[in-house]
Amino acid sequence: MKTIKPLREKKNTAILLIHCPDKQGILATVTEFLNKNHGNILYLDQHVDRQEKIFYMRVEWELEDFAIPKEKIGEYFDTLIGKPLEMYWRLYFADEIPRMALFVSKMPHCLFDILARYTAGEWDVEIPMIISNHETLKPVAERFGIDFYHFPITKENKDEKEKAELELLKKHNIDFVVLARYMQILSPAFVKKYPNKIINIHHSFLPAFAGAKPYHAAHQRGVKIIGATSHYVTSDLDAGPIIEQDVTRCSHVDTIQKLIRKGRDLEKIVLSQAVYKHLQRKILVYKNRTVVFN
Amino acid sequence: MKTIKPLREKKNTAILLIHCPDKQGILATVTEFLNKNHGNILYLDQHVDRQEKIFYMRVEWELEDFAIPKEKIGEYFDTLIGKPLEMYWRLYFADEIPRMALFVSKMPHCLFDILARYTAGEWDVEIPMIISNHETLKPVAERFGIDFYHFPITKENKDEKEKAELELLKKHNIDFVVLARYMQILSPAFVKKYPNKIINIHHSFLPAFAGAKPYHAAHQRGVKIIGATSHYVTSDLDAGPIIEQDVTRCSHVDTIQKLIRKGRDLEKIVLSQAVYKHLQRKILVYKNRTVVFN
Amino acid sequence: MKTIKPLREKKNTAILLIHCPDKQGILATVTEFLNKNHGNILYLDQHVDRQEKIFYMRVEWELEDFAIPKEKIGEYFDTLIGKPLEMYWRLYFADEIPRMALFVSKMPHCLFDILARYTAGEWDVEIPMIISNHETLKPVAERFGIDFYHFPITKENKDEKEKAELELLKKHNIDFVVLARYMQILSPAFVKKYPNKIINIHHSFLPAFAGAKPYHAAHQRGVKIIGATSHYVTSDLDAGPIIEQDVTRCSHVDTIQKLIRKGRDLEKIVLSQAVYKHLQRKILVYKNRTVVFN
Amino acid sequence: MKTIKPLREKKNTAILLIHCPDKQGILATVTEFLNKNHGNILYLDQHVDRQEKIFYMRVEWELEDFAIPKEKIGEYFDTLIGKPLEMYWRLYFADEIPRMALFVSKMPHCLFDILARYTAGEWDVEIPMIISNHETLKPVAERFGIDFYHFPITKENKDEKEKAELELLKKHNIDFVVLARYMQILSPAFVKKYPNKIINIHHSFLPAFAGAKPYHAAHQRGVKIIGATSHYVTSDLDAGPIIEQDVTRCSHVDTIQKLIRKGRDLEKIVLSQAVYKHLQRKILVYKNRTVVFN
Repeated sequence: MKTIKPLREKKNTAILLIHCPDKQGILATVTEFLNKNHGNILYLDQHVDRQEKIFYMRVEWELEDFAIPKEKIGEYFDTLIGKPLEMYWRLYFADEIPRMALFVSKMPHCLFDILARYTAGEWDVEIPMIISNHETLKPVAERFGIDFYHFPITKENKDEKEKAELELLKKHNIDFVVLARYMQILSPAFVKKYPNKIINIHHSFLPAFAGAKPYHAAHQRGVKIIGATSHYVTSDLDAGPIIEQDVTRCSHVDTIQKLIRKGRDLEKIVLSQAVYKHLQRKILVYKNRTVVFN
Repeated sequence: MKTIKPLREKKNTAILLIHCPDKQGILATVTEFLNKNHGNILYLDQHVDRQEKIFYMRVEWELEDFAIPKEKIGEYFDTLIGKPLEMYWRLYFADEIPRMALFVSKMPHCLFDILARYTAGEWDVEIPMIISNHETLKPVAERFGIDFYHFPITKENKDEKEKAELELLKKHNIDFVVLARYMQILSPAFVKKYPNKIINIHHSFLPAFAGAKPYHAAHQRGVKIIGATSHYVTSDLDAGPIIEQDVTRCSHVDTIQKLIRKGRDLEKIVLSQAVYKHLQRKILVYKNRTVVFN
Repeated sequence: MKTIKPLREKKNTAILLIHCPDKQGILATVTEFLNKNHGNILYLDQHVDRQEKIFYMRVEWELEDFAIPKEKIGEYFDTLIGKPLEMYWRLYFADEIPRMALFVSKMPHCLFDILARYTAGEWDVEIPMIISNHETLKPVAERFGIDFYHFPITKENKDEKEKAELELLKKHNIDFVVLARYMQILSPAFVKKYPNKIINIHHSFLPAFAGAKPYHAAHQRGVKIIGATSHYVTSDLDAGPIIEQDVTRCSHVDTIQKLIRKGRDLEKIVLSQAVYKHLQRKILVYKNRTVVFN
Repeated sequence: MKTIKPLREKKNTAILLIHCPDKQGILATVTEFLNKNHGNILYLDQHVDRQEKIFYMRVEWELEDFAIPKEKIGEYFDTLIGKPLEMYWRLYFADEIPRMALFVSKMPHCLFDILARYTAGEWDVEIPMIISNHETLKPVAERFGIDFYHFPITKENKDEKEKAELELLKKHNIDFVVLARYMQILSPAFVKKYPNKIINIHHSFLPAFAGAKPYHAAHQRGVKIIGATSHYVTSDLDAGPIIEQDVTRCSHVDTIQKLIRKGRDLEKIVLSQAVYKHLQRKILVYKNRTVVFN
């Protein structure tokens, strides 16, 4: 059951995400480069972190009348602007649909939320596979017509299973991974293959209650607010750059079960918001923090 | 694809929802009635509106050792307490699963959210049917294994179609109706059949922007916050007792399309929260307002 | 009791707020103008409303090495850029401290919040006077060392009193007016003298519950969220461009008095946030909506 | 400058705060005790923590026709109900106004917020003194007509100063202490004198960023939400039972200074909310968590 409405007609645009040491005139230089080459700018946002002295920018422009051929844009940009200004830059094309692998365990709420948006055509994304360490959610994958792969993980087989997973991801040209309440911890070797390309949802308001059973810990501490945090996975558990967070109120009347229930709504929305920002190419990472463009 | 995990073992409890003119000792009277008859109280909450001089109460107790037979509880309670204290009261049994009819049009987000919770066994509810004025969402119903009924509505056929819908609901013992971004307005005749049993989601923060195109109106007004409201449907459009509301921030950078997108996440969560409160028998209506127990 | 800590050393910067019909290259044109003339840009933000086809911008730059003399900047800018690009533009200098008149009635909470920030040196502002239709808050003005003027308003004397107020404001070079729960409605004639320069706080989440007694109306409607709205005053009551809003949750347990109490905290924070944005020259008004820069 | 409006006529009520091992019939027992003795109940709320098996309750009733003399209520209650049911209970009388000592350092925002409410007659409280380790805020105390005591603290003199402070508090019959961004850490000996009677505001969303410079830490971590937490002080720094928390959103555009500014508004509101709950006798502490009645 792919989409119930036709995919939006693909935008024919290019997106540049940039960060570099701040100097005078970077913005004008980039916009001039686009204007001179007849690139109609559809989106432009920049920010200067004056403490770090770093300039961040996201620009999106129409390729229709753009003077530089698509396959040459990166080269021209790097030669004329990127290298001289010591830029970290990434170029994306809106008509290249990102391919996502979904990792799940037993809890279905984040999975369903993502598949609902997928089916509704909300996101420009391909989801070729769902990987899980349990078989519980296989029926869900089947009903949505997505290939399901069961990789049960134990202490002993973890390395071998992760290797197999990585091969599968590579074989299917997976661009990024979403951990939708996936309960296994990925090894640093795995994480290294997809730097800032693995999005996780942690069911607490980081950095509070990192690690296991955060709702139990939150209940124990007697907080009056609980939260959820989506972040890129790094080799440090729950310590990667935060993409999005949200909270909801709680009180003494809430049992741990109630917190878990309240938390589910937060988790799925916060994870989906993070995934959408990633799909839109609106996230830059610098020093374990994210710049998330509006 | 009903549930992916077995339904929780049904609770064997009874629930009383009460409101009446406030007097001294009501709470003690009711709790004594339950205690004397060996009803272990699991939940008790009450509130006195001192302006209206009305007493509200929700109590839930275990039936296992309860001295009064299930089929006699209502009679005994009414005779001994309900009538003397001029109570409006409703008695529910937790093992009687409410039957919901879902009305949808073309937008799938609320539908998916409800079906996800249904499938995950989050709610004690039966959803025997999905009714729609379009066929767009038929595939979704089919994939979730729920009967789909297409009732296209025009000005001319509305009465006849509503009659047919009502018969269908009656035939399948439907207890309440959820309008999940259903875009037709139910006639007063229809609404009268299900008083405080039709839950709607309106995509604004009522009473602001009632009626059509609230996101357009919100954008026009330049508000900095948008919201969604779930309420019981009455014969006055968007004017029924409010069950739940939530908001999210917006700004000048948000186009109408962006507001609609942001709003979708609010709508589905707010609607589902309202449905859940209704399923839990935690809502009392008095003078077009709700008392929603925690 | 002016400030309890010395005022920050005044920034020597200039600020341009601009809106105009969107064209290619406006951003580059403006930033080039500043760069060429050695104006070090400290702040730059822009937004294009593609529906209205309007470009908005706020730029702040250091005057220290700026090539164009302060008193000539406006002329040069208008000639070279403003007129050709059909801009609405305003030029401000950070070392020119805005002068605010505060209007109050009997409620002190907004007044105290503003005076606290004033005294703490939080804001670069001068508050030469407090005007009131009652004498209730005169002791507060005296304790904070601010001149207090009592203008009791009746239906008969309103015109005459407003004329006197306007003269007083003019005499003291008042730049803008803050209505801190001031309960009189300013006449259109008064409002016309200070277009987008009178900030009001309305104790509801506009456009819901405009007019009198919004907490009573909110309680009556049974909303689950209440709010406060700060806006520029126009000749339409509570209908001017919204600057900031915020909300808080409420429920059936809240009496009207409780809503009023909860609302007070919102009102004072929302009003102060709006005043601060205005002082920072971060607000543009277009078609009864505000663009509020971050 | 005490109050600008006359203090509300004192309520003539009594308040009982109770927690005890949960049993059947506690609620009925207590309400019956009050009803039989002609105590008109104005407020009643209870909660059972089924995990801890603890019953919590707050009840407030009118003393006017109450059959038991005021000075005997505690004795009768304890004999008839408190002891038999193994209750922890506290009895308060609304006409006994709590006496608060305010501790401040250099930052005035929380101080001003509290003094504004005090002056406006919002709270039934007496504030006989402001204690500070700096002289910065002495002018504020003087303007509000409150005695100011300067206790500069060093490593060497801390014990001696704290002893002097405690004597001062004792001499003036201080009931509880509010640390309004007071930057010294109270010793365990001091804290022991006022168990659950010292309210602190910590400028983070605990348990995240406990200790010093939380805004710097929050900025470093790149969180998208910051918060403030009010809590009772225990001998563990920032680890005492949480009374109230609130949050606000932030992003990559916010410098540390911006976070500090945003945080100030949270801190003062959250602290004042906690103080108000304490004044209303609406807080019970159990196992380092609070039950905060509505």
